[in-house]
Parts: sequence; C-alpha cells; structure tokens
Amino acid sequence: MKIALAKVNQTAGKIKENTEKILSYVQKAEEAGCELIVFPLFAICGGPCGFLFENKDFIDENIEAAEFISKNSSINLICGEVFQKTDDNTAYIFADNDIELLKADIKNFSANKKLIVVISCLSYYERKIKEVKDFFTMQAVENNVNIAYLNMLGAQDGYIFDGLALYVNKKGKFKIFDQSFKENLIIFDTDGKDLEIGFNDRNEELYKVLVLGLKDYMNKNGFKKCALGISGGIDSALTAAIAVDAVGAENVLGVLMPSKYTSEQSGSSALKLCKNLNIKTKTVPIENIYNTFINELTPFFDGKEKDLTEENLQARIRGNILMSLSNKFGYLILCTGNKSEDAVGYSTLYGDTSGGYAPISDLYKKDVYTLAKYRNTISKVIPDFIIERPPTAELRENQKDSDSLPEYDILDDILEKILDKKMSYKEIIETGVKKEVLDKVWKLIKNSEYKRRQSPAGTKVSKSAFIKDIDLPITNGYLWNKTNH
Amino acid sequence: MKIALAKVNQTAGKIKENTEKILSYVQKAEEAGCELIVFPLFAICGGPCGFLFENKDFIDENIEAAEFISKNSSINLICGEVFQKTDDNTAYIFADNDIELLKADIKNFSANKKLIVVISCLSYYERKIKEVKDFFTMQAVENNVNIAYLNMLGAQDGYIFDGLALYVNKKGKFKIFDQSFKENLIIFDTDGKDLEIGFNDRNEELYKVLVLGLKDYMNKNGFKKCALGISGGIDSALTAAIAVDAVGAENVLGVLMPSKYTSEQSGSSALKLCKNLNIKTKTVPIENIYNTFINELTPFFDGKEKDLTEENLQARIRGNILMSLSNKFGYLILCTGNKSEDAVGYSTLYGDTSGGYAPISDLYKKDVYTLAKYRNTISKVIPDFIIERPPTAELRENQKDSDSLPEYDILDDILEKILDKKMSYKEIIETGVKKEVLDKVWKLIKNSEYKRRQSPAGTKVSKSAFIKDIDLPITNGYLWNKTNH
Repeated sequence: MKIALAKVNQTAGKIKENTEKILSYVQKAEEAGCELIVFPLFAICGGPCGFLFENKDFIDENIEAAEFISKNSSINLICGEVFQKTDDNTAYIFADNDIELLKADIKNFSANKKLIVVISCLSYYERKIKEVKDFFTMQAVENNVNIAYLNMLGAQDGYIFDGLALYVNKKGKFKIFDQSFKENLIIFDTDGKDLEIGFNDRNEELYKVLVLGLKDYMNKNGFKKCALGISGGIDSALTAAIAVDAVGAENVLGVLMPSKYTSEQSGSSALKLCKNLNIKTKTVPIENIYNTFINELTPFFDGKEKDLTEENLQARIRGNILMSLSNKFGYLILCTGNKSEDAVGYSTLYGDTSGGYAPISDLYKKDVYTLAKYRNTISKVIPDFIIERPPTAELRENQKDSDSLPEYDILDDILEKILDKKMSYKEIIETGVKKEVLDKVWKLIKNSEYKRRQSPAGTKVSKSAFIKDIDLPITNGYLWNKTNH
Repeated sequence: MKIALAKVNQTAGKIKENTEKILSYVQKAEEAGCELIVFPLFAICGGPCGFLFENKDFIDENIEAAEFISKNSSINLICGEVFQKTDDNTAYIFADNDIELLKADIKNFSANKKLIVVISCLSYYERKIKEVKDFFTMQAVENNVNIAYLNMLGAQDGYIFDGLALYVNKKGKFKIFDQSFKENLIIFDTDGKDLEIGFNDRNEELYKVLVLGLKDYMNKNGFKKCALGISGGIDSALTAAIAVDAVGAENVLGVLMPSKYTSEQSGSSALKLCKNLNIKTKTVPIENIYNTFINELTPFFDGKEKDLTEENLQARIRGNILMSLSNKFGYLILCTGNKSEDAVGYSTLYGDTSGGYAPISDLYKKDVYTLAKYRNTISKVIPDFIIERPPTAELRENQKDSDSLPEYDILDDILEKILDKKMSYKEIIETGVKKEVLDKVWKLIKNSEYKRRQSPAGTKVSKSAFIKDIDLPITNGYLWNKTNH
C-alpha cells in the first residue's frame, strides 16, 4: 500500500492558504499513485485557535474548506479539523468523497483493523518524541496492528508542533520515522524501504526547536527583521545565534546600549559576537538619557538612597530604545530572558522583559550554556569570554547575579525539583538543599508571578513552561515552609 | 433550624490564617446555638490556586487544616476544600466530627432531601447574581426542597467572588439573600425573619465590584499605597476615584506628567480632580527626558519622519516615571486602560499598559462614562470637563482618539456584538454596521493580542474579559471577511 504523510506547517486562521497547500500535496500524492494521504489535526484551521473556535463563521469556513478539499481529491484522505469548540480530537475521513467524522481515541485501538492512522496537534517538550515512539511501538505490537502517526508541524505562540511522522508495523518495526522538523510530503510503500530521520543529540534537537519557534513566530506574524540588545552576556549571545539561524544574519540587528557600568570586555565581546554572526550593530549609549531621568526624578525621591530603582531604570531605558527602533523600522524585539531568571523574577519588568518574543525563556541557565557551547560546535560564534565570565546584569559597580541569587547550578537544581520533578519540600531538603535557600527560592517564585504574566510569549521546550504549564496565582500566600514537612 | 452562613474573604495560600478565621466563625455560630455552619468552596486554601493544587505538601496542609477544624468544632459544618487537582467541586461535610467527601453536583438535586446546601467559588460577571437567584428559585420549587447557597467572597487576580449567600425555601421564597460583597456571619432561623441585601442599581453593583477588586488585590498582595498617572482624561479619573474608595485618599498618589501636547485644560482638570478626591499629587514633566531620548535616538532613525515611535516614547517615559516611583516608595502602579482600548490595541505597550493592576480593564469606554457619572452622584469628584471633552491621548498636536478609531459608541457596539453576543459577521452587518468598519475593528482586535498578553491583571466584570475568557491566538491569520458570510 502506498501512503503519503503530509507534514505541513500551517498558519492559524489562514484557512484559504492552508487549504491551497493541502490540495497541492493531494495532487502530488495522486500523481505518485498513493492510495491514501494523511494530514495532521487542525491542518485546515492551522492550529489551536482559542476563541476563534467559538466563532460560527470560522467553523463554517473550515467545514466549507473540508468539503472543497473532499471534492477535489480523488484518493482517500484523512485530515483533522474542528466542527465546534471541543477538547476532543476529531478527524475527517474522506473516503470515496464522503466526509465521515471519526473520534480519534487511541485508547480504543482494535486488532481488527489493518491500519490505524492517528493524527494530532500536540506540542513538543523534551523527551516527548521518545515517549511517543515508545508508545506506538508498544501499541503496534500489543494490538498486532500497523500504525501511521502524524503530528502538526510548526510553531504557534511558543508552542512547537514537532511534525513527527511515523509508520510502525505490527512487529514494532519502524518503516518511517521522521522528526526532521521540516515540511515534507513523505511518500512510502508499506513494503518498501525504510526512512529514519532523527537526532541522537539532545542539544541538536533542542536548538532546532528554538530556531523553529522563532522562525515561525516571525514568518507567521509578518516580521521580516528582528533586533535585540547585545550585552556581552550569554543570554543575548545565544538568542542572537538562534535569530541568525532562524531568519538570516541580514535580518538581525544587534543593539549595544552601554552604561558606565558596562565593562570594556562586555562591550568588546558583544561586538566580537556580532562580527562572528555577521549581523549589523547600533550602539546607543544610555548615559545621557539616564542622567536626564535622574535629574528630573531626584526632586521626587525625597532624598532616599540609591536602590533597585536606579538599576531598573537603566533596564527600562534600554527597553524603550529597543521599542523605539521597533516602532520606527518594524523590528520584532527579542527578549533574552531565560527560565531561571523568569522563575525568580530576576528581571526588570518593561526593561529586559520587553519584546514580542522570548526565544530562550523556557531554558534554564545551565541549558543556555549547554546550547551556546553546542552552537559553537557548528561554527564558533560565541566568544569564550562570554561563556566563561560570571553572569552579571551590570546595573551597578561590580554586580554579579550571585549577589542576589544562589549560584545558578544550585538555583537550577532547586527549580527542576520544584517545577519539573514536583518534589515535596521534605524530599528536596533530603537531597541536601539548605532550608533557607529553598525558602528564598520559593518566595522569589511565588512573588514574581505578576512579572511572568506580563512577559512575552516564548518557545516551550519543557513540560513545565511558565504560564503555559505552571499557572501560579499572583495573589499567593503559600509559604511552603511548615516545619513538619 | 438555626443556620450560619459564613461569608468569608480568604487569601489564596494562607492556610493558617484562613483556618483561624474559620474557627473564629465556628465559635460565634456555636455561641449563637446554630446547628450548622456553612463555608464557601476553597475556604481553607483561599481560592483557586492553580499550580499549588499540584503541590502535595499544599494538599496535605489543607487536609490537616480540615481535620483540625473538624476536631475543634462541636456543630455540623460544611466547608469546601480540595483533596487533589480536580475540576470537580468537592465539599467536606463535618458531621459528628467525621469528614465525609461530597461531590457537589447541583444537577442531581433530590426531592428526598430536607435541605440542600450548595457551596461554590465562582467568579462574578454582570447579571450573574440574577441568573443564580433565578436558578435556585426554580430548583427549590421544581424539586420541592429548601436550598442554602454560599459563594466565596473576595477578589483574586482580577476574579471577583461575590460572596452571594441565600436561603430559599421550597415555595421559592427567599429567607436570606445577601449580595452585599461584605464579610459577614449570617445567622438565621429557617422559621425566622427575612434578610435581603441587594442592589437595584446596576452601576452601584459594578462600582462596588471594581472597588472590591482593587482593594483585595492590594491588601492580599501587601500593597499599602498606589499611584497612577492622572491625564485629565476620563479613564484615569474613574480609576483614581475607585482607588480612593478602595484604600483611602491618603494612600493614593496622582502623578501628572505633562508634555507640550498636554492642554492647559487637561492639566487644570487633572489637578481639580485630585483636589476633589483629596489625594496628593506630583508633577513630573516629561519634556526634558523626551528631548534627550530624541537627541540620542535621532542618529539611528535614518532621517525617517515622525510617526507612532515618538508618540509611544512619551507614553513609555510616563510608564518609566511611574515605575521609578513604585520602586522607590512601594506604590502599586495602576494601569488605567479600558476594555475598548485593550480590544483594539489603542495603547502603548510598556507605556500606558504599565502597572501591577488595571481596575477598569474590563469596562467598555461607555461604561467608564456611566460609572464616572454614577460616582459623581455619591459626591461630585470628577470635573464636568473631564466627562464632556472628546477622548484624546494628547501624544501629538490636536490628537483625538477618533482620528485612529471609530467613535466609541460605534466601537463599543461592534465589540459587544463580537465579544459578548458572539454574533456572526452577517448578523453584525445586518444591524447596520459598515463592512469597512467591522473589518478594521476585527483586524485591530486580531493584531493586538500580543499587547493584551503582556498587560496587567484587571477586574473581570463581564463574561468576556480578555485573557480570562477571550483567548485569541497571537498568531492569527483569520480575516473573517469572506464575502459569502
């Protein structure tokens, strides 16, 4: 049997364009003599559409499009779509030009079937692909059935759809396994040659996901160019590299915004990074703006000492400069915050949290380093100094992140235990974490939810992405330090 | 039968304090000789707690607290709490000091029962109270049963719990009906006198909700004082009045931040408003800061014309000034945006959207006027000029909101039809809305989701509050103007 799996990258709401693409793939499959072509769930509407699913016109247009596709296809076709707001996965089966609604329920696999086709629109997280692979291997063998599976491809608002395509026979052998994250029409014969495209390397996979997340956000929202602040630190360095790999060096602008606290090495490393990446730079010093702000504000500060106010102000001036460039030239501004910072609110709201998209916001600091080093194995773009220096926000003299936070290896370990492993207080303490450190970290997490709520969308790579998966209340009095835990 | 309905206003996560309050009410009910005391759902944990419900320690502490309450109560007690993450409403019944789990399912009313007690933690929207009242009247009569109902009281992250308390007998007659939004222990005899506290006036109810929303946000998050920009416009005027009614004039600061585009009348009306409200003011002109920004940025603008960039910059400078005062003195900054503006993105991100809380973000512009006028019937605080002038952002010479947007009466009408009534495109056109206006409004809604995602929490008063109820995708290509609608 000759089958086509159409790994399409669609855009939410673009029914007409999505339909045209579907039909172009149908034609190719027809020409290749396929008996069946499969599209992922939401292939017509383009992805999860939230409130649009409550819009009757939207649903009607999707149904019209499905009927149009059906009329213009001469082969069997499976294509997922919505009929009404629902959490169920529903799939159209177009066989003999009739539309039949199928409730896809993978728990009800039946051994009577020759072939089970599963389509989905499920978002990526690290380890998901292995889990899915194992799941289908087991199902195929246990139920003695061949299984074809296709997930939506592409990114939407930070969710990554991995486009995983597979065909596993009843012996558990994969004929097809494609996790390339690339749009493609896979045409194969169930008795033909095997195709396997995957990654053995976790870092390669994660990096590709981050590139896809930004690329699709920009393309689907009509951004040609992006800009970001380049500080000479690791976060902006990795973000810049991702941006270059997503949309090309010619479409990325690095903005240096030095203050008197910016070390010479930060400045020179930032420039070196931009040169290595072959991106244009602008250097806009913040000193004059900062001094004017301080002159104007000082009469209202009632003689109070310097404190976080002045540090935040610098970050907010930088945010304003970036947004002004965005307004004037149409750049998407990239926020360079990482998950460790977001978790504990180590950021300035409307300052370094500014931007339309946050490519690395679901990466712990340790993974920022890991992926920076990984990216350097492809071509060395991030200077050693940036990777080796101690993290600093450079908002005051000789500042280091570790003045305010536990060292990142300790912090990341605690965050993983709380957010990913969901360990109890007692269990965490038993791993050797100090009580006062745990209490401090929890308090920081608890009290910074309001910042995360006002932060831009970012690429989800974990099962515990903030806002999407970890929905803490803003008003939150839970101290979690009751002594009898 | 003597019953106590404990309308408590709890804080999310503050298990210890919530428990103490519960026990103090239990004691009062015992002293008054009640046979039964009822608390709302989530009375111990304090409200919907999101990710905390996945924290085993948190659940354990709640169970411990429930057991402690049970041991220390000598009367029958109903109190809602969670045992595990669930969307079901679950309730504890403490009778004879045993804990029994009850799945509250109001669809399974039974006529065999003498009394049905329903507890909830459901959030407010306009018309909800009438709907609930009608629902229980019908249920009592149809099922020939007495019903007591108690909802959680208080505000959390913009959700308002109305604390509605009622007792309706099997004839549909209300013995108790209390929608006062006030914490109270209602003790009554099922054969005794009637108590009815309600509002006949929609505006009074809405205004009270807005005051409660801000008051609780501040109290529960530890803010003593708030500050906001006072522009001489209607939005900041109403927000200031709400703030004064929520936390007292002595805890509210009005910040005037004039530019060269600020008219004399705006400035004098702003000062008059603050004087009427008896709040302190600070006047921080933005001209010098703006000019410094422009001087520093001009070399990077490549000779491009003045455009939205310069307008947004003014708004962002104001945002920075407010945030600096917040950082220095601990003010909660109030964002003064309304729902009409939010809907179409008529705001500057990191500018006028800055703030920890947005008291009127779920009010259409027309309701901003209605409630401003209502507030003036209590005491005249908002100057006539502010109510009568045409809306303007004053970010350029002679600017009016209607330069960029349809007049607000037209805009609000369209927004209601899309968001609240969920009418189809054709239905909206048939009401006389012009196609080009509808297309423009939809495009603005569609393209401004990224701003709403980065906006602060605000008080929900409708069934269609953004983010909470209307979850549009950011990436959204749906044009909704297909000609055959």
